[in-house]
Amino acid sequence: MTNLDSVLAQVDANFDDSLKRLVTLVGFKSISTDPDYKEECQKAAEWIANELNGIGIDTRVHETPGHPMVVGHDSDTADKPGPHVLFYAHYDVQPVDPLELWDDDPFNAKVFEKDGVKMIFGRGSSDDKGQMLTFVEACRAYKEVHGSLPIAVSILFEGEEESGSPSLLPFLNAHKDELSKDLALVCDTTMFDPETPAITTMLRGLMGEEIIITAANRDLHSGAYGGPAANPIKILSRILADLHDDNGRVQIPGFYDGVEELAPDVKAQWDALPFDDAEFLRDVGLSIPAGETGYSVYEQLNARPTCEFNGITGGYTGSGFKTVIASQASAKISCRLVGKQDPDKIRENLRAFVEERLPADCSVDYIEHGSAPGHSLSADFPPLQKGAAALKDEWGKDTIMMGMGGSIPIVSEFKDILGMDSMLIGYALETDNIHSPNEKYNLESYHKGIRSWVRVLAALAE
Amino acid sequence: MTNLDSVLAQVDANFDDSLKRLVTLVGFKSISTDPDYKEECQKAAEWIANELNGIGIDTRVHETPGHPMVVGHDSDTADKPGPHVLFYAHYDVQPVDPLELWDDDPFNAKVFEKDGVKMIFGRGSSDDKGQMLTFVEACRAYKEVHGSLPIAVSILFEGEEESGSPSLLPFLNAHKDELSKDLALVCDTTMFDPETPAITTMLRGLMGEEIIITAANRDLHSGAYGGPAANPIKILSRILADLHDDNGRVQIPGFYDGVEELAPDVKAQWDALPFDDAEFLRDVGLSIPAGETGYSVYEQLNARPTCEFNGITGGYTGSGFKTVIASQASAKISCRLVGKQDPDKIRENLRAFVEERLPADCSVDYIEHGSAPGHSLSADFPPLQKGAAALKDEWGKDTIMMGMGGSIPIVSEFKDILGMDSMLIGYALETDNIHSPNEKYNLESYHKGIRSWVRVLAALAE
Repeated sequence: MTNLDSVLAQVDANFDDSLKRLVTLVGFKSISTDPDYKEECQKAAEWIANELNGIGIDTRVHETPGHPMVVGHDSDTADKPGPHVLFYAHYDVQPVDPLELWDDDPFNAKVFEKDGVKMIFGRGSSDDKGQMLTFVEACRAYKEVHGSLPIAVSILFEGEEESGSPSLLPFLNAHKDELSKDLALVCDTTMFDPETPAITTMLRGLMGEEIIITAANRDLHSGAYGGPAANPIKILSRILADLHDDNGRVQIPGFYDGVEELAPDVKAQWDALPFDDAEFLRDVGLSIPAGETGYSVYEQLNARPTCEFNGITGGYTGSGFKTVIASQASAKISCRLVGKQDPDKIRENLRAFVEERLPADCSVDYIEHGSAPGHSLSADFPPLQKGAAALKDEWGKDTIMMGMGGSIPIVSEFKDILGMDSMLIGYALETDNIHSPNEKYNLESYHKGIRSWVRVLAALAE
Repeated sequence: MTNLDSVLAQVDANFDDSLKRLVTLVGFKSISTDPDYKEECQKAAEWIANELNGIGIDTRVHETPGHPMVVGHDSDTADKPGPHVLFYAHYDVQPVDPLELWDDDPFNAKVFEKDGVKMIFGRGSSDDKGQMLTFVEACRAYKEVHGSLPIAVSILFEGEEESGSPSLLPFLNAHKDELSKDLALVCDTTMFDPETPAITTMLRGLMGEEIIITAANRDLHSGAYGGPAANPIKILSRILADLHDDNGRVQIPGFYDGVEELAPDVKAQWDALPFDDAEFLRDVGLSIPAGETGYSVYEQLNARPTCEFNGITGGYTGSGFKTVIASQASAKISCRLVGKQDPDKIRENLRAFVEERLPADCSVDYIEHGSAPGHSLSADFPPLQKGAAALKDEWGKDTIMMGMGGSIPIVSEFKDILGMDSMLIGYALETDNIHSPNEKYNLESYHKGIRSWVRVLAALAE
């Protein structure tokens, strides 16, 4: 047996024990949003720290104003080949309401079989306790077989991911030196489908802005003022209408600065994906892709920036009718960002765009609602190529370089504060019911997930 | 003394008694919206019916499901010259909240003097009890002097004008023969200013419509769907933005059918009015007329149709932010109509306008919110010329043919159901605080109002 094969064999041999540990971890009701479960969060953190210490990763539970951070470093990180990695996952879980929709106790994890597929049931089984333990169990197998890990490994486990991570930023800033490594490995994403491994290499960023147009100094009667009085709903509508052309292109000046077309090989891979545009839209009652023309739905979702209107309000919105001309109207706008788009520059240009269209006797106020740039790993980033090859070895299919329409804040925080890129590898499935009743994690996700990390660690050492 | 002069002298001689009667009428707390004041409405109706009977106008109080209608006919209407007129006013009043903003008891009417102007204080002193009694007292003076009125007069006093007139339509339909006369006289409007009499010859009509755009079959996450999923706020904004061109012209096909330019003499009169565009706008914090270019503010307000957006809502409108793509967005739209614009045709064309711009996978629902055509009296309508001349005789200034931006539903109902035009003459002022605390009616409005009706009745007989 090669070094690698012996570790994989150890994973297989120990899988029943790995499963027992996942059942134990799911048993902690570590619901981070609910203060009633504070002690359960603490217990979960201590349990996992104890496990890490047990396999030779020196680990401490750090108290925070919220739930603890678990930070560990392999006892032996000197003179290793490859990058020093910081593995990130979170031990907290979503609330379980409505409890009556669960088929069983969410915290009493059990293995069951459905349609010939074995799964482990329970809140957090997938998001993110199952995913977290794939890495821990991979490390355990290495340590058991070889007494050491192939590369230098540090660990950061958070307990507030499901409640907005209030303690994360201060913690990263306070522990910058300790946590700044060469590469973050994040295990909180999905495969492309149950057979096809994926690395999420693109995450869209976000720029949120609220625009409040004020016209008259009070609400007016449309009989007495309709016509000569400026109507803020009209002004706002015209601004919003101007924000896209007929091809769905965003018209904010400079909006596409830093947006790159897909690399040809990624484009070829995406075009070949079994992603059904019609089915994706049909599922939500639609049939016509509404994004930029010239891009597939999958590209529109994952690789193209957007400017979406998330809310609008003005005037009388109750039932019936009121012949009012409102003083104010407002809209909440968010731009999903990709590549090197600069959220601050886009906010500034959006404001200029609004003000250019504002009558001189009206005014505008803004409320900022967050900003984060997009994230993307270049297709020729060496760890990415190594990781993709390792996953292909395990799953027998090409690894998809996946995009994700939403944001994972940790990724930009690792980049901004710790100066590291993140490689997002996960084994969850869209069907895992994360954040919903009856969450599950396929046994195959767990078992082959552990094996996958064994291979990725070996590959990164090369 | 001429016939007319002796009646005017009688008005002057009896003015103190006329004032006492107004004080008595204001004393009834006839707030029609509030069921607690039902009996007060009944008493007001009975008091005014009694007054009319006392001067020889045979009057009955008709019960309705709401507050009573008061209907009277002069005992002597046969073989009179001129038109048979139906005089309309209302004896109900607005609520008085917030009571603490009143300087005195709203129902204990008192004469007071402010800046050298004598006024009568109290809820309804202007709207519409004071205005109502100008006509009753004019009839009284005629009867006292000559024993008869110069033309045939009937009366309709309503008690639900301030609460949407729910009983009016059925009542008009049920008493069509009794109430259909040659001309309605309505006393519920203002003068142009305290010195300048006016007849309101144009009222804008109204077509109200709610448009509800549905895109996806549920609210979507903008990270997971932003781009390819249709956004109903975007669709709605683009439709609203298309509804006006850059000159403020409404773009609904056929919208201007039936809209006529002002008659040259009315236009000349309006251009000469001491109406200050800048002051009108400054009062509400604006400075740039927002209606159709090429028309004065006064024309935009009174003689031009509009398409206003009275309310808009969609997506997340609370505080903070939610990255949602809404399933629905809706807008409440009202068109003020003038001349012969057809509300039904405009509604139909607006819907076609919306549907032309609706993506094929989205849908639209509508809620109708009323429709009434505009009203206008032709400048050469003989009673109008006679009325204007009579008012000029009393006030010493040319009578302004005024427009009013809003609607008075009674006018279109008289036209539709009873087949009569309405001539709107009133002596209220913009500063009367109708519908607000400290309502008042200038003694001059009341006194010269009575004298004005004496002259108008005489003029109509010619």
